[in-house]
Amino acid sequence: MSAYFDYNATTMVDEEVMAAMQPYWRDCYANAASHHAAGRQARQAVENAREQVAAALDAHPAEVVFTSSGTESNNTIIKGVAKMAIKNAVAVSAVEHPCILCATRSLHGAAVPLFLAVDSNGRLDMDDLDDTLKNNDCALVSVMTANNETGVLQDVAQIAERVHAAGAFFHTDAAQAVGKIPLSFAASGADAMTLSGHKFYAPKGIAALIVRRQVPFAPLLEGGGHQDGRRSGTENVPGIVGLGRACELAAARVEERMTQFSNWRDKLEQRLTAAGAVIFGAQVPRLPNTCYFGFPSIDGDTMVTMLDQSGFAVTSGAACASMKDAPSHVLLAMEVPEAIARTAVRFSLGADSTEAQVSAFADCAITLAKQLQQLSAVAVED
Amino acid sequence: MSAYFDYNATTMVDEEVMAAMQPYWRDCYANAASHHAAGRQARQAVENAREQVAAALDAHPAEVVFTSSGTESNNTIIKGVAKMAIKNAVAVSAVEHPCILCATRSLHGAAVPLFLAVDSNGRLDMDDLDDTLKNNDCALVSVMTANNETGVLQDVAQIAERVHAAGAFFHTDAAQAVGKIPLSFAASGADAMTLSGHKFYAPKGIAALIVRRQVPFAPLLEGGGHQDGRRSGTENVPGIVGLGRACELAAARVEERMTQFSNWRDKLEQRLTAAGAVIFGAQVPRLPNTCYFGFPSIDGDTMVTMLDQSGFAVTSGAACASMKDAPSHVLLAMEVPEAIARTAVRFSLGADSTEAQVSAFADCAITLAKQLQQLSAVAVED
Repeated sequence: MSAYFDYNATTMVDEEVMAAMQPYWRDCYANAASHHAAGRQARQAVENAREQVAAALDAHPAEVVFTSSGTESNNTIIKGVAKMAIKNAVAVSAVEHPCILCATRSLHGAAVPLFLAVDSNGRLDMDDLDDTLKNNDCALVSVMTANNETGVLQDVAQIAERVHAAGAFFHTDAAQAVGKIPLSFAASGADAMTLSGHKFYAPKGIAALIVRRQVPFAPLLEGGGHQDGRRSGTENVPGIVGLGRACELAAARVEERMTQFSNWRDKLEQRLTAAGAVIFGAQVPRLPNTCYFGFPSIDGDTMVTMLDQSGFAVTSGAACASMKDAPSHVLLAMEVPEAIARTAVRFSLGADSTEAQVSAFADCAITLAKQLQQLSAVAVED
Repeated sequence: MSAYFDYNATTMVDEEVMAAMQPYWRDCYANAASHHAAGRQARQAVENAREQVAAALDAHPAEVVFTSSGTESNNTIIKGVAKMAIKNAVAVSAVEHPCILCATRSLHGAAVPLFLAVDSNGRLDMDDLDDTLKNNDCALVSVMTANNETGVLQDVAQIAERVHAAGAFFHTDAAQAVGKIPLSFAASGADAMTLSGHKFYAPKGIAALIVRRQVPFAPLLEGGGHQDGRRSGTENVPGIVGLGRACELAAARVEERMTQFSNWRDKLEQRLTAAGAVIFGAQVPRLPNTCYFGFPSIDGDTMVTMLDQSGFAVTSGAACASMKDAPSHVLLAMEVPEAIARTAVRFSLGADSTEAQVSAFADCAITLAKQLQQLSAVAVED
């Protein structure tokens, strides 16, 4: 048996999302900015989808800005707020996705990039947050809702409260959270939130930035003035329609999936730990679909390659093109020793996962771990 | 008979493009940055498409950067080159698409935005180009291959030569040219060229920036380091595959379409001019599919609305969200008086157009023009 267990990297497009998009490729294909009848029909589809996204995420439709990716949403809010702000600092957690880290590092002019510490479980160090807010003039703080590697959840509402008390705006990258845990923009307390369609069964190439109208930010993409000037560029009508439907489906299915996935994940982790594996972030609330584990002294990349040869698609970290040979910056920020960080393998469940696949994966991973440990024991004896 | 004549605003997705994308929604759906077998398959699809784009445009695959829109490609090159350059000026023509104009206007720090004049036909004023290059320290010059409103073509190779002689980089926005005229990145002499998928039967949400490796530019989207760090963000695999196929089809079909469309367009223009219409840009080489016309004293918006009610989708200018009530900046730059600029209606042919539709359009437009002129004559008599 083989299986795809890399849903945190990307998902297939849901069949209902495919069906929702279908009319917009070749029938209702007009430009949503055109004023003729065909254009108005496309505009209606875009605005319907905006309402679906808003309803599913407990936001106002006017707060939804469609973008092309989580990376674009994150670059937009970090660079856009920094460009407009009088305050000069932007603080982000050390375990953010590379697109938050890189956008923050690249801030120029007077902007000061700050990186917030996490504890050994990967949760934000609240004392460091307080100190940072006290000692700097922060325009924006960004802390992700759920980590893409460990699945560790942050106490976003509490962070938002402290950030607001210091007079800064708060953004949370929720790309990994949609459809995996219940999510409310209003309840999060955040001023801005990033969603990424392809993480929850919408297509690649469509995403959103939910952002309160009071947050001043310079647009990243300027031009025709689409979306109230917040993001120019011809609207990706089929993608937007797909995102709207995917948000509805995510909200409708989240409870059932949470129960099912956490059950399977917990059984998997019991077996892996019994076989000697470490589970990263296991002590704190996590996404129910994610298991980030390592077998002592077994290189994560080697394990991923051998699991791949056995038909199981997992990853040794984030599915990013950079930092290929470096150990996870997330685990290093958690002060996991580099040798142990290098053992990390990320397993993530999704729509088409079955209990039998999970069980077969556990068998395979444990067998491979024993083989690799024996090989390394033989190597040491020699 | 009704018809869509707004192909310069956007196109339907070609059935062959749909077929090419089909496997990548739900079967080969992995993240192209993942290292497992499914990820490598997605990577292969992306690299195949990169070769298709390069082959169709006479570029090297390593020069192709996939983006989400022409707007993103244009913002990337304008802002990215300005950010990296020691030279401080960026010069663009006054008739560029709003995304070039806005990105240039928004340059901050020491960057100086310059706008190049055009003549009464909409062609670049070469003396103004020379003066600008002589009197400024230009890092980048951007002049579009074909104008989105008038269809007027620029002498890109000659412009590139002068720009290079002055030591600047040259970019051309070819969003409106692909599939409408033969196009070669190599022959254009440009250092960078923008394509936009939805203008030539690929889906909305996918585009490319073709850019020579010698051109230093700061990426607009930073993060995971995808596409050699030139544009981060999970690759839109189905969109990229669709763009590759659409480029192949555009190259294969361009000659036949040019002949057909220019024939129909010329017949239309004969009838419109005989009925008293002005054709903008008619004295110089234009895209064969575009007719930008106006009937004296008849408001373009009114004409577009009445044509829409008769089932014909055309536009009174670019399909952009901004500048709704302003006369065309393109026509004003050509020194067309504002009263005449306000009569403008853009008609553009594409894949599903037929000669019968064009003929029916001519009948309808001429009849409406007569009715509207009679109404205004009666109003004047009163």
